[in-house]
Amino acid sequence: MSNQSNSINESELLKHIFKRTSGLSKLFPHIVAGPGHDCAVVKCGKETLLLKVDQVISGRHFVPFPATPIKLIARKAIARAISDIAAAGGTPLCALASAAIPSDFNKTNTLFDWVHRAGVNFNCPVVGGDISKTDGPLSLSITVVGRPHTKRGPVLRSGAKVGDSVYVTGTLGGSFDRQTGRGKHLAFVPRLSEARELCDRLGKHLHAMMDISDGLGVDAGRLAAMSNVSIALDAKLIPRAKRVNDWRDAMSGGEDYELFFAAAEGVRVPQNVHGTIVNRVGRVVKREKMGVWVEECGKRIACSNLGWEH
Amino acid sequence: MSNQSNSINESELLKHIFKRTSGLSKLFPHIVAGPGHDCAVVKCGKETLLLKVDQVISGRHFVPFPATPIKLIARKAIARAISDIAAAGGTPLCALASAAIPSDFNKTNTLFDWVHRAGVNFNCPVVGGDISKTDGPLSLSITVVGRPHTKRGPVLRSGAKVGDSVYVTGTLGGSFDRQTGRGKHLAFVPRLSEARELCDRLGKHLHAMMDISDGLGVDAGRLAAMSNVSIALDAKLIPRAKRVNDWRDAMSGGEDYELFFAAAEGVRVPQNVHGTIVNRVGRVVKREKMGVWVEECGKRIACSNLGWEH
Repeated sequence: MSNQSNSINESELLKHIFKRTSGLSKLFPHIVAGPGHDCAVVKCGKETLLLKVDQVISGRHFVPFPATPIKLIARKAIARAISDIAAAGGTPLCALASAAIPSDFNKTNTLFDWVHRAGVNFNCPVVGGDISKTDGPLSLSITVVGRPHTKRGPVLRSGAKVGDSVYVTGTLGGSFDRQTGRGKHLAFVPRLSEARELCDRLGKHLHAMMDISDGLGVDAGRLAAMSNVSIALDAKLIPRAKRVNDWRDAMSGGEDYELFFAAAEGVRVPQNVHGTIVNRVGRVVKREKMGVWVEECGKRIACSNLGWEH
Repeated sequence: MSNQSNSINESELLKHIFKRTSGLSKLFPHIVAGPGHDCAVVKCGKETLLLKVDQVISGRHFVPFPATPIKLIARKAIARAISDIAAAGGTPLCALASAAIPSDFNKTNTLFDWVHRAGVNFNCPVVGGDISKTDGPLSLSITVVGRPHTKRGPVLRSGAKVGDSVYVTGTLGGSFDRQTGRGKHLAFVPRLSEARELCDRLGKHLHAMMDISDGLGVDAGRLAAMSNVSIALDAKLIPRAKRVNDWRDAMSGGEDYELFFAAAEGVRVPQNVHGTIVNRVGRVVKREKMGVWVEECGKRIACSNLGWEH
């Protein structure tokens, strides 16, 4: 539940994956967008699918049961994957769940029930799954199938253009309460309605979008790389959650599950969508070696490492 | 890698899940078939999707690396999920992969590469994924999206009728070599072409189908339950793999990844499909308390517990 060095360097691995899969759409023309976006986008006959898998592992994504109730574990697992469907401007259709269950965990029925209910509550029914025993921690892997916005189509990370402004919904930081293990990371509502309203109102002027799961610094760096631009954030514009005193803390906590998006120069972006505040936090500039930075008192501070690696 | 008692009773859990989700299609009319089949079947606009998730966990589904090479771990993970698409008579469209990686495993790039290649080789490209660290064993969860046979539509477990004959492709047993950890469970080719040929040739006379992953006894019991029938297998008709001397061993090893299907009375079922032998192994009868049994020398032997629980 914290930054740590480890045998997998997530950014390096993502670079490797992205390089290896960059030719996938040529080989398989039905793949519109593969690894590197919040969702894969795949043509299936006359329809277009959004596809996302995400997992939560005990001790890493939540404090182990019983400190985190089963209901909240299940809810978080489903909500995380749905958040990526929202980030692509889509609507969930259904989900699949696979669970690895430690031999001393005797509440598998209850876990299933809450996964099922979370799916129903988010209008994303769990239609199938797999359960296996493990000698390791409890873990849940959730796949969500979604459909893109009918008019805007799928919103990717790769569409930001020089001159765009960048925005975030809600406030950042403090999602994980270190004393209780609770907080927004267990309680957030995926920004489906907000994303839909942005698609409705901005249409093609909504150039790129993603959800902030690892921290604004890391994630803005990813959007910048996929769009082949740089992003300059303004320290004083970063919206901070209550009791978050500093933009660094706001950007590095991770698990905000807010939307980060780029909209065309000159377009009027609403100050709130579906009741959620929207703040302009910076601008898209020409690609430089530094992919994303924060400007504070006229200085540039690199921030693409400000975040949480899983 | 063997039968064992444990805190999850798979059959009991499946009953619980099936009971809890039986009303899902009423609530969400786009769900054609939910939990209980090899694949979920979901309507998406004008298209129909087959959806399946399956996982492999080190020490449970394969002997830990390096005894099992990464290439074969990746291949098995993808092939298992595709086998369920075959069991529904479908064709894979794409896959998603989530991996939980132990901190001392330093071959994540290689693992990714083999997962990617297995997807390409099976014509089921991996379009997205999630990688997380774990304190537990290496595990891979694979979701496959597929499309049903254009004429036959999705083949479910629930269509077997009294009077049908039941068949298996290939031979059963001995998939896991206890000395080496290798064998068919790492090398099988999902029966996609065989299933397609069955759909082509039998059409609506192909009443029900599934893949044999946990053993013919357990799996035939599941098909019988979903179809509300019983199944009488004939001991002398069970096709045994080489060095499998007994029908009990043939039925209880699991991991055969062969097709088990029910076809209408009187219909001519080919003796081989796409070069794979097809054997009649029994018949569908009226539902009795005993869901499935083997007949040997005029006696009935219950066999729904003959198999492998994960």
